[in-house]
Amino acid sequence: MIRNKPCVLWFTGLSGAGKTTLVRELSSVLKKRDARCCSLDGDDLRQTLNADLGFSEEDRMENMRRVAEVSRLFLNEGYIALAALISPLRSQRAAVKSLFEDGQFIEIFVDAPLSVCEERDPKGLYRKARAREIQNFTGVDDTYEAPESPDLHLQTHRESPSTLVRTVVAYLETNELISPN
Amino acid sequence: MIRNKPCVLWFTGLSGAGKTTLVRELSSVLKKRDARCCSLDGDDLRQTLNADLGFSEEDRMENMRRVAEVSRLFLNEGYIALAALISPLRSQRAAVKSLFEDGQFIEIFVDAPLSVCEERDPKGLYRKARAREIQNFTGVDDTYEAPESPDLHLQTHRESPSTLVRTVVAYLETNELISPN
Repeated sequence: MIRNKPCVLWFTGLSGAGKTTLVRELSSVLKKRDARCCSLDGDDLRQTLNADLGFSEEDRMENMRRVAEVSRLFLNEGYIALAALISPLRSQRAAVKSLFEDGQFIEIFVDAPLSVCEERDPKGLYRKARAREIQNFTGVDDTYEAPESPDLHLQTHRESPSTLVRTVVAYLETNELISPN
Repeated sequence: MIRNKPCVLWFTGLSGAGKTTLVRELSSVLKKRDARCCSLDGDDLRQTLNADLGFSEEDRMENMRRVAEVSRLFLNEGYIALAALISPLRSQRAAVKSLFEDGQFIEIFVDAPLSVCEERDPKGLYRKARAREIQNFTGVDDTYEAPESPDLHLQTHRESPSTLVRTVVAYLETNELISPN
């Protein structure tokens, strides 16, 4: 029995905002409901498919483009693709969205203030960026353009991951992207 | 019920040798047997994921690398990935194979003499290559190195596609990559 429609949930937000955490919990919930879903984590893919890319604006766009194309391959198989990438610029996210059919691209803004993300600093990257050990770090020396009208706006400094995952699941149910439980 | 183990079947051979035809028929047979499989056709992917790549040796390697990395993502989901790319050089195929675990990469040589492929010329590419309208065309002005010890050697000028598909299925059964029917 088909338990979901093909779509991509595109999680955008600063490093440390909580994209990976949400995708991990959401993936677990969706699999328990027999939805077909796969996680496409930007950091992981930079070790494999996108290992040749850096962090220039051009390379970030190429990074996003490839993840979008891979997502489409999974959509062809009926999957919900969970893509977690900083995806800093509005124009880049619009370019990605244009690769999908209407209603298949769900933009999810994973939002926390820079100060909160920097305090969390799960990978020590903000510290390195402030120390100028790494460059082009979004929020420090590169721009992040918050979505103006995301499909979902999740504030990770206000709600727990499990609450936010329930919000996403409710969205998917309301939009008939997954079957009711 | 799991009907297959994750693996990639890597179809290598000249343009016109019959890779796409075999993958199409094989995919249909495997799906009827409830195996999870997806087709990763080199020509198709050059319109999407690999649209930025040309036909230099370097670009062909990058083309193969990306298809291999995408295959790995599908293997993570339990799929049999059916990858059909000319993949002309032994060293390149060895590099791709090294990205997979032992026993997961099955090299399938789709073999037909150049003269037969050129007579079939399903996309009119040999004609264009002979007329010098396109360059770097494998078999005409670029080398194809036949596999020395492929896992399977399919001769499309001697056997019908359906016979060869049965050969592949038998191989998968013998090696316990799919469940018996």
